[in-house]
Amino acid sequence: MDKKTKFTNPTIKKILKHYRTIYALEYLNAVADWDLDTYMPEKGAKARGEAMGKAETLTQKIFLEKHFVELIKKSQELDDLNDYEKGVARVLNRDLDYFEKLPPEFIEEFAKTTAVASTVWKKAKKDNKFKDFEPYLIKLVELVKKKADYMGFDEHPYDALIDSYEEDWTTKDYTEYFDKVRNPLKELLGKIQKKGSFTQDLVLEKTPYDEDKMVELNKKVLKYLNADYARFRDDQTVHPFTTGFCVDDVRIATYYPEGNFGQSLAATAHEFGHALHRLNCDPELDFTPLTEGDSYTLNESQSRFMENIVGRSKEFLGLFVEDMKGLSPEIAKIINKDGIDGIYRYINAVKPSLIRVEADEVTYHFHIMLRFEIEKGLIEGSLAVKDLPEIWNSKMKEYLGVVPPTDSEGVLQDTHWSWGYFGYFPTYSSGSFLAAMWKVKMEEDLGKIEKLVHSSAGIDKVENWLKDNVQQYGAVYTLKDLLKKSLGKSFDPQPMLDYLEVKYLG
Amino acid sequence: MDKKTKFTNPTIKKILKHYRTIYALEYLNAVADWDLDTYMPEKGAKARGEAMGKAETLTQKIFLEKHFVELIKKSQELDDLNDYEKGVARVLNRDLDYFEKLPPEFIEEFAKTTAVASTVWKKAKKDNKFKDFEPYLIKLVELVKKKADYMGFDEHPYDALIDSYEEDWTTKDYTEYFDKVRNPLKELLGKIQKKGSFTQDLVLEKTPYDEDKMVELNKKVLKYLNADYARFRDDQTVHPFTTGFCVDDVRIATYYPEGNFGQSLAATAHEFGHALHRLNCDPELDFTPLTEGDSYTLNESQSRFMENIVGRSKEFLGLFVEDMKGLSPEIAKIINKDGIDGIYRYINAVKPSLIRVEADEVTYHFHIMLRFEIEKGLIEGSLAVKDLPEIWNSKMKEYLGVVPPTDSEGVLQDTHWSWGYFGYFPTYSSGSFLAAMWKVKMEEDLGKIEKLVHSSAGIDKVENWLKDNVQQYGAVYTLKDLLKKSLGKSFDPQPMLDYLEVKYLG
Repeated sequence: MDKKTKFTNPTIKKILKHYRTIYALEYLNAVADWDLDTYMPEKGAKARGEAMGKAETLTQKIFLEKHFVELIKKSQELDDLNDYEKGVARVLNRDLDYFEKLPPEFIEEFAKTTAVASTVWKKAKKDNKFKDFEPYLIKLVELVKKKADYMGFDEHPYDALIDSYEEDWTTKDYTEYFDKVRNPLKELLGKIQKKGSFTQDLVLEKTPYDEDKMVELNKKVLKYLNADYARFRDDQTVHPFTTGFCVDDVRIATYYPEGNFGQSLAATAHEFGHALHRLNCDPELDFTPLTEGDSYTLNESQSRFMENIVGRSKEFLGLFVEDMKGLSPEIAKIINKDGIDGIYRYINAVKPSLIRVEADEVTYHFHIMLRFEIEKGLIEGSLAVKDLPEIWNSKMKEYLGVVPPTDSEGVLQDTHWSWGYFGYFPTYSSGSFLAAMWKVKMEEDLGKIEKLVHSSAGIDKVENWLKDNVQQYGAVYTLKDLLKKSLGKSFDPQPMLDYLEVKYLG
Repeated sequence: MDKKTKFTNPTIKKILKHYRTIYALEYLNAVADWDLDTYMPEKGAKARGEAMGKAETLTQKIFLEKHFVELIKKSQELDDLNDYEKGVARVLNRDLDYFEKLPPEFIEEFAKTTAVASTVWKKAKKDNKFKDFEPYLIKLVELVKKKADYMGFDEHPYDALIDSYEEDWTTKDYTEYFDKVRNPLKELLGKIQKKGSFTQDLVLEKTPYDEDKMVELNKKVLKYLNADYARFRDDQTVHPFTTGFCVDDVRIATYYPEGNFGQSLAATAHEFGHALHRLNCDPELDFTPLTEGDSYTLNESQSRFMENIVGRSKEFLGLFVEDMKGLSPEIAKIINKDGIDGIYRYINAVKPSLIRVEADEVTYHFHIMLRFEIEKGLIEGSLAVKDLPEIWNSKMKEYLGVVPPTDSEGVLQDTHWSWGYFGYFPTYSSGSFLAAMWKVKMEEDLGKIEKLVHSSAGIDKVENWLKDNVQQYGAVYTLKDLLKKSLGKSFDPQPMLDYLEVKYLG
């Protein structure tokens, strides 16, 4: 591979040479983090936190070496850069801002705290003990408030946190976005409930299933989606995630929630969507700052595309109908009676539920609005951590009409806070909405998605389209510029509202 | 934990503070290395090599920071240090020698090469294609010859390599040691063969076994040996190994060789012996240079003790006789006929075989003598890599009277060369011999080992003895000093020869 084809500017080349060591440190921390979430013995957490924290401090130190900072600043002023080189300059100037503003002690403390907190959270969730996690969450909120102060913001401290996941968006932008989609989604939910075809009491709900067979089914799904195990692996964890160390080593961790085989399938497809984003990134971008989408809305649009638009379609589900029969006698009964239709309605059932990751495509966004409000409240100080279980439950009641019977299924349901990720959640909603924009353009180019997902050749076309239009570019473009380049449009929630309307009421 | 109890000297405290970052880098590389040997997708090797190489170069750079080098040099001249502080000074002065002599480009190239070579070796072994591994082995031999030149040596370039695994030993020492044990072992083998009780054609040889049940049996063995899964884990790999990232995260990888359940059991006990060495190290030594035995003979004495003296004893094997019955009908038949005696004779069968790790306690050492001679030849240039398959087979014939039918079972059998470990093998033999020295003293203190291994309370005593006399100290003492402190003796091969005589002829 000739590195020279994309990066020829001498300043950028110098930058990328120095950057390889930074990449190596981030690579090693990513491996350690993957291990922490999959295989690490529980008591290893403390030392893991210290080791990862030291590596982050070191990353910062190497990043802030004077000659490197000068090169990065210079790169912003160069006017003869190609798009790839501009991407390097853009991303590194953002990183520089981060490293210049956050003191090393803060970064180290943050890394140490999250390594322990994520292990404590895992146990607290298992034991249904919010009190065990509470002191860590208090600490984490303090830390992210400090982070916001260090980073700076114009209007709201939450802006500074959102900005680290979504370059161009603010608290105000997300407030406007949620205001725009809240009512249409509520109306849609009302109509779907009235029509009733996706909301009936489903006999498959809470059906036990054969986990070994489900593992096999997920493997089969991954294989159909072109998973290449020479460059990829899948593991199990409590909370599904994807990580990539280089273009040739990308990993998902999926899960097997009790009584919900559909969710295991959906999570697998979801994470594989993320994995493809990394696997299909231009290999020349390895060991540069451009390996992965910098926009979390963009990242999430890839996973939600694969989970919902591909994975929950009747044509896709129909391919695995024989395997599903083996999961349990109840599932076999439904299939024998209704064919794939029963499974399709079950997997797409629209019904307010307790947990975001298990929510349907419509009510999903209410979970995020709720968390957006809570995070905003925690950051501005209008809400206190100790009151969270109660606040959580009352907001669940308000938005979804259901109240979690335990904190494990309520405020403790999700790992993101334990990682210190505040400001991340809104991108789950905007990313889901973005997925439909890709669908519209893809169908203009390739024809109906329902036909495509039904064959290997069609899946290849879908994946190549995503590779060509989105994934190959990593973080070369901002979300705004990529949308302009690939779609000629700016972000628009309407296509998703249209898609949901057709899918559930059409 | 009060760090002050063992390290109070101000210079040593400054050293240890700086060292925490070096430890963190080595910690992260160890995690990446564990992953490389267990779960990494094959094509990830190249980037893994680069990331680990960069981290090693960085380690060297941080080690060689002027103020740190000055502190290390100063530490050698301090005369008011306690044993722990002296250990820090000793180990770091050895490390300094290494980092000062090896150029960063060399260290990086070495790391890159071994990361790829170990993956190539794995595949070459599987495919039985020495030719695929040959260019990497040529490169590795070149690299270790260079290493010897950089490090320097008095008599033989191989000395420099041996020294990195065994502080006080040289090519000459090992030549003398092997000369001392070669004939007694040959005579012993002759007598055992003549007597016949451990050499009859064993019906269990190459008996297929239920792998899932063997996994369960190994877990049961590990539990009996006090494995605490909050601080430990076990995985599977091609070539068993142990690694430890901190005192609370220690891991073994064991294997399931076809037709040889006894070897799977022995490997598990062996690696757990290594694991205990790290698990029982004083927790205050974490993040210092003293975490693990610096002497590979010492390390190996712990694993071989657990494998052979504990794990192959009749009293220990007898505890698992019911579980063994479930492994296969043939095994059940033997047990039903002879009780544990048949299993004991099978697992301790003395019979020249193809592979060191599967060899009995007597012929084991011939495998090492053979490799010692080959390594010496490669390093001094009297042997060429391309001739190795032939040389290997002829030496096997000479020492053991058997010739491997394939290179996979011959010259490709072992992973160490692919890691760049030359000079390591001799310590397998001296370590095995050292195990018997511990046994003699332990029995003086606690009574017969056969009685101890038979009960949980006895196992606790054995492990506590090893912890108190060996394992807690990590690398605080040189092998020589530890033997003096704990046994009042210097290294002596006689106890092992006595043990073998009693076990096989008594």
